[in-house]
Amino acid sequence: MQIYADNAATTKMSRTAIDAMLPYLDGIYGNPSSLHSVGQKANEALCDARERIAKLLGCEAREITFTSGGSEADNQAIISAARLGERQEKKHIISTAFEHHAVLHTLNRLKKEGFEITLLDVHENGMVTPEQVDEAIRPDTCLVTVMYANNEIGSVQPIKEIGEVCKKQGVIFHTDAVQAAGHLHINVREQNIDMLSISAHKFHGPKGIGVLYSRKGIPLVNIIDGGAQERGKRGGTENIPAIMGMAAALEEACRNMDKNNEKLTLMKDRLIEGLSEIPHAVLNGDRKSRLCSNVNFCFEGIEGESLLLLLDDKGICASSGSACTSGSLDPSHVLLAIGRPHEIAHGSLRLSLSEENTDEEIEYIIKSVKEVVSYLRSISPIWGDLINGRKEFVIK
Amino acid sequence: MQIYADNAATTKMSRTAIDAMLPYLDGIYGNPSSLHSVGQKANEALCDARERIAKLLGCEAREITFTSGGSEADNQAIISAARLGERQEKKHIISTAFEHHAVLHTLNRLKKEGFEITLLDVHENGMVTPEQVDEAIRPDTCLVTVMYANNEIGSVQPIKEIGEVCKKQGVIFHTDAVQAAGHLHINVREQNIDMLSISAHKFHGPKGIGVLYSRKGIPLVNIIDGGAQERGKRGGTENIPAIMGMAAALEEACRNMDKNNEKLTLMKDRLIEGLSEIPHAVLNGDRKSRLCSNVNFCFEGIEGESLLLLLDDKGICASSGSACTSGSLDPSHVLLAIGRPHEIAHGSLRLSLSEENTDEEIEYIIKSVKEVVSYLRSISPIWGDLINGRKEFVIK
Repeated sequence: MQIYADNAATTKMSRTAIDAMLPYLDGIYGNPSSLHSVGQKANEALCDARERIAKLLGCEAREITFTSGGSEADNQAIISAARLGERQEKKHIISTAFEHHAVLHTLNRLKKEGFEITLLDVHENGMVTPEQVDEAIRPDTCLVTVMYANNEIGSVQPIKEIGEVCKKQGVIFHTDAVQAAGHLHINVREQNIDMLSISAHKFHGPKGIGVLYSRKGIPLVNIIDGGAQERGKRGGTENIPAIMGMAAALEEACRNMDKNNEKLTLMKDRLIEGLSEIPHAVLNGDRKSRLCSNVNFCFEGIEGESLLLLLDDKGICASSGSACTSGSLDPSHVLLAIGRPHEIAHGSLRLSLSEENTDEEIEYIIKSVKEVVSYLRSISPIWGDLINGRKEFVIK
Repeated sequence: MQIYADNAATTKMSRTAIDAMLPYLDGIYGNPSSLHSVGQKANEALCDARERIAKLLGCEAREITFTSGGSEADNQAIISAARLGERQEKKHIISTAFEHHAVLHTLNRLKKEGFEITLLDVHENGMVTPEQVDEAIRPDTCLVTVMYANNEIGSVQPIKEIGEVCKKQGVIFHTDAVQAAGHLHINVREQNIDMLSISAHKFHGPKGIGVLYSRKGIPLVNIIDGGAQERGKRGGTENIPAIMGMAAALEEACRNMDKNNEKLTLMKDRLIEGLSEIPHAVLNGDRKSRLCSNVNFCFEGIEGESLLLLLDDKGICASSGSACTSGSLDPSHVLLAIGRPHEIAHGSLRLSLSEENTDEEIEYIIKSVKEVVSYLRSISPIWGDLINGRKEFVIK
C-alpha cells in the first residue's frame, strides 16, 4: 500500500495535463520566436495558454509572465516592486514571518541593500489580519507581500481584505499563491491583487513552470536577462510543453474545485478528528480558515523525522514542515512564527491530501499515526517523565 | 514537404529523451527534497542525472547546478563571477561583441553598476583569438566570458587556448556552450573552463532545463532565492522529468557525435557549395572553424524576412539571425560585430541542420533558396540599379 499525502510538496501530474503536454514534446516542437510555420504553431499555443490562464486568474493575457516556477515568480515580483520603490524613495516592505523562503530570502537580500523589512507577527492560529497590514503601512512602503495559503500549516489569509487595505493606501500587493492556485478561488481584480505567483506542479501540472501575474503598469525587472521573450522581461526559450500542461492542469483544477474541495473537506475533517484523539496532539493552523487539503499536527515528545520514516515504512508519504527546507536542520520557521517553542518546531506532521485520496486511506493514516506516535513515545526515555511531570510541557 | 533547418533555435526531442522523461511525469513524481520513499526515488534520479552529466562534461557532480536553461545559467555564471570580483576590487570583465543576449544584457546590467566591460572585436571570419584575450586582461579583470560556438554564424572559438590564457593570468573563464553541447567535444578540465552553460533543447532534449557547471571553489550567487535545492544556490523544486530527459539527450548526442558530425559536415559543405553559386552571396562565419550544422549567408539586396516567409511557403524552416531576437527590428548584433554593414545585417539566412536532415532535403533547400533569391531580386526596384552601378555594394 502506498498512500501519497504530501501534495503540498508536489503532486502527481493529471492525465489531462500530461496529454496536453505530449504533443509539444516532439510534434509541435518549434521555438515560438521563430517566424516559420513550425515556430508559429508553437507561438499560437503560447498565446492560447496565456489567454486561458489569464481568464482563470481574472486578468489580461499581457499581465501573465511565464517563469520556471513559483520561486522565480516570487523573486521577480518582489525585486520588481523594490526597484520601483527605490526610484520613488520608498524602501520599506511589509511581509509576514511565515512566508516561503522564496519570499523571505529575497527580502533578506533587499535588507542587505538597505531596504527596511517589517515581518508581521502571525497569530497562533496562523493568521495575519488586514488591520495589522493597515497599521504597518508607512509613507515609504513600496510593497506588501502576504501568502495566500501557508505551505506548512495551510492557513488561508484574508487576501481580498489585505488587498483592499493596500489599494486604499496605494501600495503594491503581492501574494504567493503557490499553495492556493487550483485549490482556492482566485480573481486578481476582485481580490485587489497587484502581483501573484503560482507553480504548476502544486495543482497536478508539470514541474519547472509557473506564472507571475503582474498588473499592467507595474514595470517588471528581469531576473533572467536575455532574449526578447515575455515582452523582454524573462530571457530563455519558452517552455511550451510545460506551459500547455500547466494551462490544462489549472483549467481542470478550477473546473473541479468545488467538487474536489467538498471531498477534501470531509477527508481533512475526519483526519483532524482522528488524530486529535492522540494524547498531547495539537493542530497547527486555523481550524476553519485553512486549505481543505492540509492537516498539520504537533505531537508532544515526537521527533518529526522518526515519525516520517516509520510512516513511510507503513506506505504513507507525509512530511514534516515543507519539502523545500527538508535539507535543513533548522526548526520550521512557520511553527516558530505561530509561537511554537523551538523544540516542538522540529517535530510536526504535515499531511497534504489530494482528491485522489480515499476514505480508506484516511482511516489507515489515522490508525498508523496513532500506532507510530504511541510506539515512539514508548521507546522515548524522557517521554514518561515529561507527561508525568508537566502535562503540557511545550504547547500552551 | 516540411524541412526543419532551424536546429539552432530549437530541436525536436529525440525518442530517447522523451522516453527518459515520461516515467517521471506520473510514475516517479516525488519532490526530491521529500524524505519519504516517493521523494527519495526522485532524489535518486536527480543524483544519477547529475553524475551522468558531470561525467559527460568532465567534472564532478557537485559542480553541476541545474537551471531553467542556458539564459539562466549565463546570468548566474556572470553575476557570480562579478560578485566575487567585486569583493576583490576587480570590476573589469572581458567578453566579445557577438555573445548571446543572455550574456550581453547581463554585462550591460553590471556596467550600469559600475563594472567596466571590454567587448573584444570579432574578426570578419567570426573568430576571437587567445592573444586578444591575453592582451585585454588587466589586474582588475574578474571574468572572461567567450561563447564556444556562435548561435548565428556558427564560428567555433579556440576555447581551450582562451581558457589557458585565463588560467595563467588567474582569471575566471566562462563559456556559453549552449550551441556546442552535444555537438562539440567538451571536457571542462582539459579545456581550462571554470564555468559553462548548456541548454537541453539545443541537443534534442526538453525545453526549460539547463546546466551551469562551475568549478568547485567559485562561490555561486543565487539568481533565484528560495529553498535549499541545488546546495542552496537555486531555489525551486527540481524539474526531474526535464533533468532526466536532458541527461539522456546529452548522452545520446555525445555517443553519436562523431557519426552525426560526419554526416552533418557533408550536408553543410554541399549546402555552402550550392548556395555559393548564387551571385553576390557571402558566407558569414569562418569556413573551417564552424559548427558542422551551421550555414549562414548574406545575399546582397535581399531582405531577411521576405526570404524566410517564401522559404516557409516551400516548406523550409530557416531563420534570419537568432530566434531569441526575432521579435526585434534591430539588425543582428552578430553580423554587425563581424563587420557587415547595417543594411546587410538585416538580411541573412541561417540554416541549422540536424542529423535527421537528408541529402535530398539539402538539394531541395539549395534549389529553393536560389529560386527565392532570384525572385526577390527580380521584383526589387533597386536591385538592378545596384548591381549595375556597384557590383559589390555592401560586402567588401
